[in-house]
Amino acid sequence: MARRANVPANGRRRSTIREVADRAGVSVATVSRILSGDYPASPTTRKRVMLAVEELDYVANAHARALAGTSAKSVAIVLNSVISPAYAHVAQGVEAQTAAEGRLCLIGTTGGDPERELAMVQFMREQHAEAVILVGNVVADETYHKRMSRYAHGLAAIGSRLVLCGRPPLGPDVPAVVVEYDHAGGAFAATSHLLSAGHERILCLGSRPGYSTAEGRVAGYRRALAAHRVPHDPALEVEGMMEWHEGYRMMKERLATGAPDFTAVFALNDLIAGGAVRALTEEGLRVPDDVSIVGFDDLQPSLDLDLTTVHLSHEEVGRTAVRLALEHEARGGTPPHVTIGTHLVIRNSARPRRMS
Amino acid sequence: MARRANVPANGRRRSTIREVADRAGVSVATVSRILSGDYPASPTTRKRVMLAVEELDYVANAHARALAGTSAKSVAIVLNSVISPAYAHVAQGVEAQTAAEGRLCLIGTTGGDPERELAMVQFMREQHAEAVILVGNVVADETYHKRMSRYAHGLAAIGSRLVLCGRPPLGPDVPAVVVEYDHAGGAFAATSHLLSAGHERILCLGSRPGYSTAEGRVAGYRRALAAHRVPHDPALEVEGMMEWHEGYRMMKERLATGAPDFTAVFALNDLIAGGAVRALTEEGLRVPDDVSIVGFDDLQPSLDLDLTTVHLSHEEVGRTAVRLALEHEARGGTPPHVTIGTHLVIRNSARPRRMS
Repeated sequence: MARRANVPANGRRRSTIREVADRAGVSVATVSRILSGDYPASPTTRKRVMLAVEELDYVANAHARALAGTSAKSVAIVLNSVISPAYAHVAQGVEAQTAAEGRLCLIGTTGGDPERELAMVQFMREQHAEAVILVGNVVADETYHKRMSRYAHGLAAIGSRLVLCGRPPLGPDVPAVVVEYDHAGGAFAATSHLLSAGHERILCLGSRPGYSTAEGRVAGYRRALAAHRVPHDPALEVEGMMEWHEGYRMMKERLATGAPDFTAVFALNDLIAGGAVRALTEEGLRVPDDVSIVGFDDLQPSLDLDLTTVHLSHEEVGRTAVRLALEHEARGGTPPHVTIGTHLVIRNSARPRRMS
Repeated sequence: MARRANVPANGRRRSTIREVADRAGVSVATVSRILSGDYPASPTTRKRVMLAVEELDYVANAHARALAGTSAKSVAIVLNSVISPAYAHVAQGVEAQTAAEGRLCLIGTTGGDPERELAMVQFMREQHAEAVILVGNVVADETYHKRMSRYAHGLAAIGSRLVLCGRPPLGPDVPAVVVEYDHAGGAFAATSHLLSAGHERILCLGSRPGYSTAEGRVAGYRRALAAHRVPHDPALEVEGMMEWHEGYRMMKERLATGAPDFTAVFALNDLIAGGAVRALTEEGLRVPDDVSIVGFDDLQPSLDLDLTTVHLSHEEVGRTAVRLALEHEARGGTPPHVTIGTHLVIRNSARPRRMS
């Protein structure tokens, strides 16, 4: 059906749902249900309807559908950015599970700005998204608690739900589904791996006081030192963000003062590990012969570095978030709270400490 | 304001826009305009209004706002996945520019499925998104043309616009903004760099007949060979997808037959380069001493590989897409069509061919 470009909307009559139904040879109710995604139609019927929709250029009147209670079902995920491989993989998991459940998945990014987060959560609420999934590293203070609590109650009030992924839970009286990562357990395993290989001076790159992800991992690092009765030296904890260039900066600055006062490195994520390895290489230090390194996440560039690291299935986190949210929608009751485990992947970036 | 969890929506009166206005000490019109994002309010006023919205848990009635013509303005980007660093970086650019322009940015993924793409475009159209940006590698056949043309006309009919990013243009009578990448030019430069260094047998990893991105880059590779009067050997073009594991597979399979019959590699993106380097290393071949390699994108893992590669600013592509779309909205006329250039970044993964 040819159309003239730039014809104003108010100068042309739009196709109606009845015209779509007639073209597809089905009832209006069938068209409505198929478009809202909750009708288990035969593939043939569905194809006929979608073809009619395309050919007639049908735009469902959102108002009419809202009144009829047949708005497209959606799940929303709100994260800091899609650049971070960790967040992108969670989003991928959310998206895959959402598609499998026949819903639309919307992704919104905030750049870490609470105002943009609020705007996005409100928008998703207006869409009557079935679940709004918030992902990522936060400063979990009183302001954060209040904000999350408002979101949770606000969504619950319209029959939707808040899902927190990789963020600290809010307490028993806040209606939110929680999917936590075992940051501390993974970090404990990574650090223990180095300690068991004889390393005692282990640099920890990427601490960030107040931020839940980093704090969880540093806690695991410290717990492992204590378990192996190795003294904790706060000067071995270097502050920085979880980015490749930060890993590079932190290691360059450390090495600028002279020969390394450590034999191994625990990088709080694999991006940091990448930057750190680059800095070590530039200073003539080989991994693992001179300095061992372990990372966290098992995401890029872990394969390129042949990196021993903590595997955390970010996609599984995303899929679980959706699954739990939709199950809770169906069953009600106390919102579930689960922790996704980790395991160490042994590659070739760490070796026993050389006793000179 | 404390709320009881799970209170059904129909059992509690919702706050009205008037209550928000009263709480913030401004007019209803001001609240409405601030929420729709197109009111240049003072930061103080805006803060007061947003605080009142939060405290009163105000959910704008989407219908009422649509009728009043004050729906939240949004820009949508639809891509295959957020896992691919190239797409994620374009999305980041779209998101940054959108936020700068005071709009909401929605990201949708399709997994490459045309039906999900249709559902997403329709959804965005119902939201009256100002622009719908489609990104990524496609098979640009007749079906694709028809589909894109329908989207373009359908969006134009309601005063919105389609933006194609990194996809072939549709011709002069289709109302779409086009932002192209100079795939062929970048590939020409990369291949020429190797040819100028004396390499004649250059393996090309990641061809994919029919797919616009790969075809553009292979065209540049062939053009460079022709320009340097080096014979084109089709057996040096290896088919595969633009993923790390594909690069690994392609190289492993190539090396399985014996010593390399090439002295250099042009990987059609940096992920392929990463996998290929890993395979070379496993077979005892060093980069660049034994085999030179050049990539494309300048994304992970280019820094970890110290990779000479074609730099394409994916974020710039995203920002440009938004900028052009919103300018077109303001000015009308023929939709713009621009090409984003590339440049070679020389690092240390390629060296002159050793003449034995």
